[in-house]
Amino acid sequence: MAKKLAHLGPRGTFSEEAAILYDGSASLVPCPTVAAVASAVETGLADEGIVAIENSIEGSVTDTLDLLIHDSHLAINHEVVLPITQCLMAKIGTVPKQIRTVYSHPQALGQCRKFIKEHYSGAAVVAAMSTVAAVEEMKSAGAEAAAIAPRRAAELLGVTVLAHGIQDHSGNATRFVVLGPEDHPPTGDDKTSIAFSFAEDKPGQLYRVLGDFAALGINLAKIESRPSKESLGRYFFLVDANGHRLDEGLAGVLEKVRARTVTLKVFGSYPRYQSPAP
Amino acid sequence: MAKKLAHLGPRGTFSEEAAILYDGSASLVPCPTVAAVASAVETGLADEGIVAIENSIEGSVTDTLDLLIHDSHLAINHEVVLPITQCLMAKIGTVPKQIRTVYSHPQALGQCRKFIKEHYSGAAVVAAMSTVAAVEEMKSAGAEAAAIAPRRAAELLGVTVLAHGIQDHSGNATRFVVLGPEDHPPTGDDKTSIAFSFAEDKPGQLYRVLGDFAALGINLAKIESRPSKESLGRYFFLVDANGHRLDEGLAGVLEKVRARTVTLKVFGSYPRYQSPAP
Repeated sequence: MAKKLAHLGPRGTFSEEAAILYDGSASLVPCPTVAAVASAVETGLADEGIVAIENSIEGSVTDTLDLLIHDSHLAINHEVVLPITQCLMAKIGTVPKQIRTVYSHPQALGQCRKFIKEHYSGAAVVAAMSTVAAVEEMKSAGAEAAAIAPRRAAELLGVTVLAHGIQDHSGNATRFVVLGPEDHPPTGDDKTSIAFSFAEDKPGQLYRVLGDFAALGINLAKIESRPSKESLGRYFFLVDANGHRLDEGLAGVLEKVRARTVTLKVFGSYPRYQSPAP
Repeated sequence: MAKKLAHLGPRGTFSEEAAILYDGSASLVPCPTVAAVASAVETGLADEGIVAIENSIEGSVTDTLDLLIHDSHLAINHEVVLPITQCLMAKIGTVPKQIRTVYSHPQALGQCRKFIKEHYSGAAVVAAMSTVAAVEEMKSAGAEAAAIAPRRAAELLGVTVLAHGIQDHSGNATRFVVLGPEDHPPTGDDKTSIAFSFAEDKPGQLYRVLGDFAALGINLAKIESRPSKESLGRYFFLVDANGHRLDEGLAGVLEKVRARTVTLKVFGSYPRYQSPAP
């Protein structure tokens, strides 16, 4: 039986592309929010869920980080990196020069800020809940509208691509993580994602935690802070370390980190992503 | 002559409230984007500009961080902390039970996620470019719509507040920074904001920078990473340190940090915010 894989829907989003890249034979379960993707897995409606965690331009997907920190006991068992190509699309017959409104998700609008300024500086920029919702809103708007979305959305919704690769920076890519009941066994080339917080705000405490990793020469692929949601200036720190939580070295570091912190949550260990051969 | 103070408009937003909290006698210059606030100061249209940089629940305002890192040479000369109270508002006569659509800026929607789920789980949630734009969209929608915005927006736009303090977490506050041509002279209780990046990804390099601060017992009020926009896994690190860049200790640390990094940008030193007496 095909694996049931939950993702942020509707069809045609980058999340659907990432789901197909991760497992082309899975039966896809589109969900309306990141929290609903997690719920689908927790309730057994899906075997696994895939959610965006970080874009190379816009940064972290905070919904996903906050879900992992506060609201979920699922483990990360894979990561997938999807190159992002944004397209400007409109109804067939639209004259690019007459476009007065551009619809998209705020993150996609952020990725195409310079393109919009250069080519459509007079246009109204309208936020939508997803890139596909943007295409739908554009379709029901007047003739002078365009939307920014992945090419697949144009195919699914029967509109025409006016320009592709319009993101401001080449090398635009989004990292997704796959959530399931358990993380992945060691493969020899793994990453481990954790979050921790301190009981009080003292000089040097983050430095000492990073020192535990540095002492063993463990590279941190990422470090990031998220508000604790209690008050300004209180944070959770999120770290991606190279290695598996069952590796002897990293296991020892995690013990030390647990002793230095008030909360330590290990999101899981998983194989480092390797791009498929072109 | 009153100081001209640029802020993210339109009137009625939290940014306007913060501008008034910072300088009640200033002549306010509302701007459509964070970048436009900076441009207003750079071109002399305004003397200073005030922009949100961090919310206690939703985290950093990435537009502001990216502006400071990549696109502006303005200095931070003050910080202001504004307590945030979100209100649910609708046209006069709206029956709360009949509400089918809730409009707001994605950040405000994020701050009221639990309230919406509990009271309006069946309602469509619609993103708007600002809380005030959300109220305007709500006004021109049917009778079954509501918006989430600050109380001041209800007063300015003639709608009624159905519920106030609807944010999920008490202690919700937003930190703003004031941008001007120069930072602030030392006052004895200051903060300094910097950003830095490394030439290549090596184990322990962030640890060594944090060690320069820890060696002098300098507390870091904040540490955060932002993507370099070049590729996944390359970051700028942003640090708020206690002290002034002209203090002997911190000046020495900044010299060391400059030597360890490929880019170091000092956004400025400014007095630590003290809440006004109630």
